[in-house]
Amino acid sequence: MNLEDKLIMMPGPVPVAPRILRSMSKPMINHRGDEFAKICDDCCGILKDIFNTQNDISVISGSGSAGMEAAVGCTTNNDDKIITIENGKFGERFKLIAGRYGKALPVESEWGEPVDLDKVEKYLAEGAKSVAMVHNETSAGILNPAKEVGKLAKKYDALFIMDGITSIGGDEVKVDDWGVDIAIAGSQKCIGAPPGISMVSVSEKAYESMENVDNKPYYLDLEAYKESLDKDKTQTPYTPAIPLFYGLQEALHIIDEEGMDSRINRHRTYSRAIREAMDAMGLEMFPTLDGNTHYSNTVSAMKAPESVSGEDVKKDMLEKGIVIVGGQARLKDKIFRIGNMGNLTPRDILITIQEIETVLHKRGILSEIGAGIDAANDVLDTL
Amino acid sequence: MNLEDKLIMMPGPVPVAPRILRSMSKPMINHRGDEFAKICDDCCGILKDIFNTQNDISVISGSGSAGMEAAVGCTTNNDDKIITIENGKFGERFKLIAGRYGKALPVESEWGEPVDLDKVEKYLAEGAKSVAMVHNETSAGILNPAKEVGKLAKKYDALFIMDGITSIGGDEVKVDDWGVDIAIAGSQKCIGAPPGISMVSVSEKAYESMENVDNKPYYLDLEAYKESLDKDKTQTPYTPAIPLFYGLQEALHIIDEEGMDSRINRHRTYSRAIREAMDAMGLEMFPTLDGNTHYSNTVSAMKAPESVSGEDVKKDMLEKGIVIVGGQARLKDKIFRIGNMGNLTPRDILITIQEIETVLHKRGILSEIGAGIDAANDVLDTL
Repeated sequence: MNLEDKLIMMPGPVPVAPRILRSMSKPMINHRGDEFAKICDDCCGILKDIFNTQNDISVISGSGSAGMEAAVGCTTNNDDKIITIENGKFGERFKLIAGRYGKALPVESEWGEPVDLDKVEKYLAEGAKSVAMVHNETSAGILNPAKEVGKLAKKYDALFIMDGITSIGGDEVKVDDWGVDIAIAGSQKCIGAPPGISMVSVSEKAYESMENVDNKPYYLDLEAYKESLDKDKTQTPYTPAIPLFYGLQEALHIIDEEGMDSRINRHRTYSRAIREAMDAMGLEMFPTLDGNTHYSNTVSAMKAPESVSGEDVKKDMLEKGIVIVGGQARLKDKIFRIGNMGNLTPRDILITIQEIETVLHKRGILSEIGAGIDAANDVLDTL
Repeated sequence: MNLEDKLIMMPGPVPVAPRILRSMSKPMINHRGDEFAKICDDCCGILKDIFNTQNDISVISGSGSAGMEAAVGCTTNNDDKIITIENGKFGERFKLIAGRYGKALPVESEWGEPVDLDKVEKYLAEGAKSVAMVHNETSAGILNPAKEVGKLAKKYDALFIMDGITSIGGDEVKVDDWGVDIAIAGSQKCIGAPPGISMVSVSEKAYESMENVDNKPYYLDLEAYKESLDKDKTQTPYTPAIPLFYGLQEALHIIDEEGMDSRINRHRTYSRAIREAMDAMGLEMFPTLDGNTHYSNTVSAMKAPESVSGEDVKKDMLEKGIVIVGGQARLKDKIFRIGNMGNLTPRDILITIQEIETVLHKRGILSEIGAGIDAANDVLDTL
């Protein structure tokens, strides 16, 4: 099968709309000139709407992990304590990054289990400087309680760092209302652009906390980004990945045209369609929920059926030309995951469900096909 | 004037060939799959030829400065001493980065003046762990003595970190022969691709030195890159900027087709044409040379004529649709610079010289035009 014939239903990188792909073919420009400044200003304006923030937004040429490191590294001195909430692989990443810059105080649940908010509050009361949480934990398909953690951070005057890499641009994120001091988005997720860019909003409080940090990273120094944002012509401190900025700008225009409310509703409807279809097929969702924790609206994680591993489902689907993913690290084989981020159509969702049914039918898990498609259609018809 | 009508003669980003621009419009792929591994392997094979090395080469989604930080940050503990050679802005950058990870021992010359090799040796003899130098200092148009510094580093068993961002892919660089432990290239310079990628070769000795470093950066952790290189399917530790990898691969194919010997000869001939033209116009080159230090073969820095600042020349040229640059930081106004990196044609060089003559003529610096064009043609005819 030709590479370009595959349908990417991963939790990022997501398929990129042709008009975004075409936008990257424009010639290079001087990144210190007027044209580049205009692109930056245009992007940041739309991004502020998407993040729901008045804070500065810096656009970093690097993946989401670069944004996570920028947030932690610029606000954490060697002796600072930073609470890292972990119920999946990306929460674990916050712990690993925090350990390089300061003292991580991990609040761990089993991957896919709800966050222990009492323990978060206990550590805050003991004087942690900041708390870092992944909003939408793609590795487990779980949506963590950002608003609640934001309230706790505010109560104890701590910084709240939130990885919104797989929620911002697809699900509701209210940076200012929730009190998120640093929020991180990724280009290749709900925003629907190619990978390689992370976007980081920074509150005044977060900037102030950076003043006394003496082991900040260099390439990811958010104070250097702020200086470049504040110049006469908006710039980046280091040479930006120009084609990715072209792509980001086009992707943000698409979001602007769709409108964030419609876009959030579309993502939520797609994920509900997937969940209802899975339920109709007798498959179980992987995450365990509580009142503050929800299923992700941008990636669904299902327990693998008993006799078939998550990797098997992934491989069978790949043969059909659809790229879904299994579980990462300790979840390998135990789950499989379907992303619904970005500029997908209902057709993309429906064909994925149809092929899952076919695959499970061939594997002897389902006696017949159709229930999943029916359930998905019922949900998608509400759009 | 339309943005796309400008001729970019900056020392990077450089104009990107249409076939490279088109290559970035391909759909996304799974960055953990076979197709992406093939792209990485293909790129690394050609890059080893360009670097003249058998060392691993990691491809980082980030600018050249990210590569510089990876090199310094992964090999420098808090108490380690690292010699940073500075005769221009990018040498200064090594000093700034080194200061965040360890103790910088700066060996400073005036920008554009030769490197003080005796002082380098003195610090090496006093136990510096490593020495970092910019091979081709674009800010001053000077080519620093890499072979000589490599010999000194070897003599004292120190690491040699070399920023080859604006030499690799255009001028001669012999990583293994010169004993360069970590060499850094940038995509948007001589390689002729868009910005956003740095490529870093790492010797065994450099990897060994990383084992005891405890404050390594996370996103730029070269040990994590090595682990991903060594997997069954070549990967990157964090999501790569896929379109930039497409562009890089196409740019490397162009280099492979041209052949590095021809490419080096072409770059050297272009820069000689520019220098001879400037001389014919009565302009002076900015750098001061000695036996170990040469004019850059990829960017020419000229002293601004007495009554006209470097910024004036730049502005006049911009009005004619050609983007050249003035001086950076302390060299602002004093010099102007013309890049000749990447996949430029002799026409690009000639029209730039013609317009410089016209600009200087209009400014009353030259009484007539033609001498520069003649001088450049004489050199270009040797190609």
